[in-house]
Amino acid sequence: MVLIGTLGRSGTIDRLAAAGKIDVAPIADKWESYTIQTVRDPMPGVHEALVIAGSDKRGTIYGIYDLSQNIGVSPWYWWADVPVVKRRSIHVAYGKYFQGEPAVKYRGIFLNNEAPCLSAWTAEKFGGMNAAFYARVFELLLRLRANYLWPAMWNNAFNEDDPRNGPLADEYGIVMGTSHHEPMNRAHKEWTSRRPGNGQWNYLTNRPAVQNFFREGARRGRDRELLVTIGMRGDGDTAIQGTGGIRSDVELIETIIKDQRRILMEETGKRITDIPQVWVLFTEVLKYYEAGLHVPDDVTLMFADDNVGYIRRLPTPEERATRTGGFGVYHHMDMNGGPYSYKWINTNPFPKIREQMNLALEYGADRIWITNVGDLKPLELPIEFFLSMAWDPKSVTKDRIAEWTVLWAKREFGASHAEDIAKLVSRYAKYNAWRKPEQMRPDIYSLENYREAERMVALWQRLRQRAEAIHDALPDNFRAAYYQLVLHPIRGCCNLTEMMVAAGRNARFAQQGRASTNAEATEVKRLFAQAHRIRDTYNHDLSGGKWNHLMDQPYIGYVSWYQPIQDITPAVSELDLEDTSRFGVAVEGSVQSWPGYYLPPSLPMFDSLHRDRRWLEVFPRGAMPTTATVQASDPWIILTEARAFSSGKEDRRYWVDIDWAKLPAGRHEGAITVSDGTVTMSDSAAQEAISITVIADKASSGQMQEAKGCWGSLGAAFSIPADGYERTIAVGDVRWDAIEDYGRVEAAMSIFPVDAESMPDPTRSPRLEYPLFIGEPGRWTFDLITAPTLNINPNNQLSVALWIDDAPPQIYSVFSPARKASEEFVGEAHDHDSRTDMRVVPFTVDIPSAGRHTLKIAMIDPALVLQSIIAYRDPLPASYFGPPSMRIGEG
Amino acid sequence: MVLIGTLGRSGTIDRLAAAGKIDVAPIADKWESYTIQTVRDPMPGVHEALVIAGSDKRGTIYGIYDLSQNIGVSPWYWWADVPVVKRRSIHVAYGKYFQGEPAVKYRGIFLNNEAPCLSAWTAEKFGGMNAAFYARVFELLLRLRANYLWPAMWNNAFNEDDPRNGPLADEYGIVMGTSHHEPMNRAHKEWTSRRPGNGQWNYLTNRPAVQNFFREGARRGRDRELLVTIGMRGDGDTAIQGTGGIRSDVELIETIIKDQRRILMEETGKRITDIPQVWVLFTEVLKYYEAGLHVPDDVTLMFADDNVGYIRRLPTPEERATRTGGFGVYHHMDMNGGPYSYKWINTNPFPKIREQMNLALEYGADRIWITNVGDLKPLELPIEFFLSMAWDPKSVTKDRIAEWTVLWAKREFGASHAEDIAKLVSRYAKYNAWRKPEQMRPDIYSLENYREAERMVALWQRLRQRAEAIHDALPDNFRAAYYQLVLHPIRGCCNLTEMMVAAGRNARFAQQGRASTNAEATEVKRLFAQAHRIRDTYNHDLSGGKWNHLMDQPYIGYVSWYQPIQDITPAVSELDLEDTSRFGVAVEGSVQSWPGYYLPPSLPMFDSLHRDRRWLEVFPRGAMPTTATVQASDPWIILTEARAFSSGKEDRRYWVDIDWAKLPAGRHEGAITVSDGTVTMSDSAAQEAISITVIADKASSGQMQEAKGCWGSLGAAFSIPADGYERTIAVGDVRWDAIEDYGRVEAAMSIFPVDAESMPDPTRSPRLEYPLFIGEPGRWTFDLITAPTLNINPNNQLSVALWIDDAPPQIYSVFSPARKASEEFVGEAHDHDSRTDMRVVPFTVDIPSAGRHTLKIAMIDPALVLQSIIAYRDPLPASYFGPPSMRIGEG
Repeated sequence: MVLIGTLGRSGTIDRLAAAGKIDVAPIADKWESYTIQTVRDPMPGVHEALVIAGSDKRGTIYGIYDLSQNIGVSPWYWWADVPVVKRRSIHVAYGKYFQGEPAVKYRGIFLNNEAPCLSAWTAEKFGGMNAAFYARVFELLLRLRANYLWPAMWNNAFNEDDPRNGPLADEYGIVMGTSHHEPMNRAHKEWTSRRPGNGQWNYLTNRPAVQNFFREGARRGRDRELLVTIGMRGDGDTAIQGTGGIRSDVELIETIIKDQRRILMEETGKRITDIPQVWVLFTEVLKYYEAGLHVPDDVTLMFADDNVGYIRRLPTPEERATRTGGFGVYHHMDMNGGPYSYKWINTNPFPKIREQMNLALEYGADRIWITNVGDLKPLELPIEFFLSMAWDPKSVTKDRIAEWTVLWAKREFGASHAEDIAKLVSRYAKYNAWRKPEQMRPDIYSLENYREAERMVALWQRLRQRAEAIHDALPDNFRAAYYQLVLHPIRGCCNLTEMMVAAGRNARFAQQGRASTNAEATEVKRLFAQAHRIRDTYNHDLSGGKWNHLMDQPYIGYVSWYQPIQDITPAVSELDLEDTSRFGVAVEGSVQSWPGYYLPPSLPMFDSLHRDRRWLEVFPRGAMPTTATVQASDPWIILTEARAFSSGKEDRRYWVDIDWAKLPAGRHEGAITVSDGTVTMSDSAAQEAISITVIADKASSGQMQEAKGCWGSLGAAFSIPADGYERTIAVGDVRWDAIEDYGRVEAAMSIFPVDAESMPDPTRSPRLEYPLFIGEPGRWTFDLITAPTLNINPNNQLSVALWIDDAPPQIYSVFSPARKASEEFVGEAHDHDSRTDMRVVPFTVDIPSAGRHTLKIAMIDPALVLQSIIAYRDPLPASYFGPPSMRIGEG
Repeated sequence: MVLIGTLGRSGTIDRLAAAGKIDVAPIADKWESYTIQTVRDPMPGVHEALVIAGSDKRGTIYGIYDLSQNIGVSPWYWWADVPVVKRRSIHVAYGKYFQGEPAVKYRGIFLNNEAPCLSAWTAEKFGGMNAAFYARVFELLLRLRANYLWPAMWNNAFNEDDPRNGPLADEYGIVMGTSHHEPMNRAHKEWTSRRPGNGQWNYLTNRPAVQNFFREGARRGRDRELLVTIGMRGDGDTAIQGTGGIRSDVELIETIIKDQRRILMEETGKRITDIPQVWVLFTEVLKYYEAGLHVPDDVTLMFADDNVGYIRRLPTPEERATRTGGFGVYHHMDMNGGPYSYKWINTNPFPKIREQMNLALEYGADRIWITNVGDLKPLELPIEFFLSMAWDPKSVTKDRIAEWTVLWAKREFGASHAEDIAKLVSRYAKYNAWRKPEQMRPDIYSLENYREAERMVALWQRLRQRAEAIHDALPDNFRAAYYQLVLHPIRGCCNLTEMMVAAGRNARFAQQGRASTNAEATEVKRLFAQAHRIRDTYNHDLSGGKWNHLMDQPYIGYVSWYQPIQDITPAVSELDLEDTSRFGVAVEGSVQSWPGYYLPPSLPMFDSLHRDRRWLEVFPRGAMPTTATVQASDPWIILTEARAFSSGKEDRRYWVDIDWAKLPAGRHEGAITVSDGTVTMSDSAAQEAISITVIADKASSGQMQEAKGCWGSLGAAFSIPADGYERTIAVGDVRWDAIEDYGRVEAAMSIFPVDAESMPDPTRSPRLEYPLFIGEPGRWTFDLITAPTLNINPNNQLSVALWIDDAPPQIYSVFSPARKASEEFVGEAHDHDSRTDMRVVPFTVDIPSAGRHTLKIAMIDPALVLQSIIAYRDPLPASYFGPPSMRIGEG
């Protein structure tokens, strides 16, 4: 027997408590708490029972779903077709379990940007966003231990689309809100479908009609559990119709809020402090707050992120001291609008969500968390992570994210592949955050430097191979869930990367006059068709078409924030090929080709400290294959023929390695010659031979000794992963610590506690020291690659210090008065950084001598997340990620 | 009998002169002068003769070719296959003709950028750039009354490629020079093929070898007529290898020049003032001059243009006063390098050449003019114009350019089509200068505003139709000349414009989800293939393949200044079409489409002052035709169906006109609805109807009266052609005057004389007044569209003033200290302006009242060329040219 009830609402539970058979003291008077206990002889004739007792309605519900999940029912059993494994018996250990209050009082999602997917899917499957649909949403929310919802509103009005919606929410125990721009429990569509008064959504020109609209909303919700959005923006999620000056705008908004609160009291008969209200500082609204707009202290102030997951502002200690309504955060996992839209697929890695929401927690924005989840699917994973963290942050501390993910995978797919699946879902989200799919373009990854494009393609292809292998190994009944949660995004994003890189090759090869330009155009079209097959499998084949339309979202062909009408092939060029066997040559490090470019070709210098190999490619320029041969001038130049990074079957790559043993220390010059082997030099049709300069720089044994274990080079650009330090110096409790699997690296470094006091003197603040080997002295630039953290604490400027050895520290302040406008939300620098998901913090340093040095990076302000350091003396070769990191002596 | 000889060199001529039978006083001791006279009884037994007597060798030659041309032999008879019309007799009127000295002492061309065309052509036809080739060049130069040549040097050495070249030039009377970066009569290839000393082209590190190289050049040319380039740049047309500071660089160059002059005297035995020398202030070299580098006064200082035809600097009165060597100009009609390359076709309109070279004349840069002509062909026209102007500027005053062109056409093709052909060649060059072919991109011309792209296509197509009609009407033997001089560039450039605009539609239509996206992709490929057919006709079919390779130059697919290896199709996208009959709508003024974009569509406001029509297009989005119908809400909205500007056969355009008679004055709103006519509203497959807002603003009769004859609008952006003034106010001789057929307009306005003194007070300087009608008061911007004139006179800042009515004048200084770096050569603003061939000089003006006003534009400095004025209150719709000009009441 399972006895379930709520304290003070269930006679049975209250009797058991009064009789001392269950212990409810730890949860009494708590918010959404519960206990699960085994009880002997709970009532006459019952030998033993399992009791679930909630401190309140939702506490009880969460207790039930806790049991359900433990029994083996995934919260996603319906929403992602996760099989419920049938069991012959279930065992419960005797004992008492107490679940205390959640860390965040209101935890919810915002269904948004719902066309073309969610709207078409709900229309087909439910006949609209009605109670049948919302019942599914409410159940999911409760299973995920959420309690709050902003309903879909693009062309929807929750309370009017189906009059059962509102009462049903109340019945389920879901606290309803309305989005940031829809005050007083009313959908904006309720306004636009009526347009009362003069029709203007304007408190200056149409006040009586707007007030009445507010009043109707307050009245409708009087008996329901609501969290009322207050304030006002413009007509349909736009900036408020201004009055002409910020001071008068502020006064207008203050008046609106005062009136709204009066109406709420009048219509509900409650004290205002008994009506939870939220004012959302979205986009331009924050400006009014910073300009001094006062909102009564019982209202929750909800700060927003930058629409890409970076929180713009958090409360200061002074603000926290007075605001009884507390603070919240409005977060995005999906966006339609600026700085750019991302609506297709999950691009939200857990470590980034955790890093930002942990700032919210530690800075006291814990009253409400809501995240914009677009169509809900396919954001199952980040939604659950976000809500888990809001419920119990200890379950997802920075060092437990991988563990949490494995537990998730185990719950959904069983133990045998859990570790692998956890890696797959972590990685695809991580790669997607480097450059969101909608922001992918043919020229993002470098074809010529660091083999970047080919490494990115290989990374995705490896992920896809592993994902396919697990798919094939899983039992049939798990495959639908696996496809939607794991395989589909990996297939789709791998295909997208392959297609964009092929389009990049098409453009580059066209410039190089490569015959394979045309093969790349064909390849782009093939991959485009494949993208649609991957989509169609989701829409049509999965669970009998259950999810049809949920992958209707176009994602290929964005030119602005606004989505294309449908997917567009990346544009491709073609060449008219002549009937010749002429050859061309391309070399690593250059976009040019030969014969053609007026400066002769050379390979990037070889450096014995790293032993990188380089490449050159020989390709036909006409319709016929070439017979060009490749020869090295010296025995220390080793050539190995391989597959070209090309869709052209006739393109050939040659790897170039140096046989360092054959060379003494110092700089050596040789050449590689490409010539047309079939013709004699007297043949006038013979092409001129192309000579590629090879320079190899070999460190002396002394240099090698000195450099070992350092980061550095004999002269070229290099990079250092943030966790590649040799020494970390803490100051008291304040220290640099690793955030695993963050951003572009294996582990980023940041200051903990995240709300540590700033320390203006970098020589006495927590510091990281890195061993450097500098082959060429002179002026070096050190770019710190950080997260694009915003100015969450207006009391500081997000500063950091850097210096070499005992030179005086240099300080860089991201939010200095000169940089602030560009670095903050809607600023030019941040617009760029939100696309690359990183920020460059540059330092220029004179290094007077070659040899070993110590690079020192010290905290000034907390919340800066350091991913890596890129160092260069000559102009940095163009690439998206910069040079890969490699420690000297480990290559 | 024709008697020909040179004064002082021909006994016959001298005897005739001594006998008083010919009058030679007007040409005696003159430079390159001649007389043509009929003489009775010149010698025993000869009844009468025609005498051509030159003041010097070239004077005589020019006299001969003057007669030749008058007889009917075009200077281009060989070089452009212009037929020599056979005559049975030739009549010479009795009398005396005297040709005085040329305006410019040395007049020449620079063969350059000679790969892939000139080099392949000379290899095939002459076996290299040998004496057989140069004999053709020399003859052409003399027929064009030029006297100076910089020979080809990319992979050529004039004196070594064929040892006969140098003596032959001397024999022909061509003064040889070497290019700006090749001092002392030596090709750079002579250096690179030897690399004496340590091999470095460096006067610091390899002085003895470089000096010896100079000396050999001086020695070789000692007995020839040379104009010696002095100074030194870097290795192969690059900046000089610096010494580390500008002061020491200056000293080094001064030393080089001093040494070069010493060597010249030593090797020739002449006085230095008897050796013409030129120092060319190309690119970075000007910087040294401005930094104070002193070059002896007998050296000609040659200023350069910006590589696109705008002269960077001209001598000041102070400079002119002392420099006995005078000044010259190095001009470009063809470029390989920055700011961008243009090597394919003629893009040099005569009025622009004339305007700039007239500045040179008037500011005293008249000692040497040389122009970079690339492969020589197809620049026949601008070459002849440039050299004609250098010879006799009076023949091409600004008001005689059209006359000169008609005379040219008559000479080449006879009288019957001369006027039409003159227009054709003027127009294609003019259009090409708006945007050079190499700089054409799919998105240059606006598809959505001002019907710009379609007007440009129509402009070219009309030109092509006329050119084809004349081609068909010409006798067979003129067609080869006509093709190369007239039809080929028009066909080629029309085709290019059509192709780029089709590629633009492809990209735009893809964003709009238009099914015809795919038809545009096909159209681009068709036009690309056609481009190659047009090229092949030139190379293979013309005059039996005589000009093979001269059209080998790739011109489609530039992404930087460096040319693509071969032509590349503009990149195109495709769409996967679904099997539906869904429709989409696009409207004038917007890049968006509906259904789709989140804001509803509206047409740009209709303004009764201009009576422009607007358009909307309805198109299929799927594979099936649509049955959408279009309806207007009101009888004053007139819809007319027409051909869409699209390659898609199913796309439909609707013109929207207003029946103004049906409307009272004031603003009226209506709508046009597009809906799917075949389905009933209950059909769930029916598309939502699209409603397009139409706003018509009708001026009152009072407004109409007031506005008549003005430039203006009821609120929208408008433009004013520079010659649309109602009043021009001169100050003394200084006045604004028209330059016909200039730039983007029918007539530009500039100050004459072009070297007038600056006038700092605009209220007392020459001014233009334009009648304005302003429908909406407020803050208006007036963009003066000027030529991108550079700071030829360093004593001023190229300032101009503007004001309305009696408001205080505002002054804008293009070369103010703050703007100078950006506006001058290699500056960011000038880089942009050199591509658009114009500069925007913006003024912002508060206009307090609606109604009639006077716009006043006044000179501060001369040399500014005003093309038009664009006025706007709201943000200016994106376009290349801005709104077309239309005077109110004339629409």
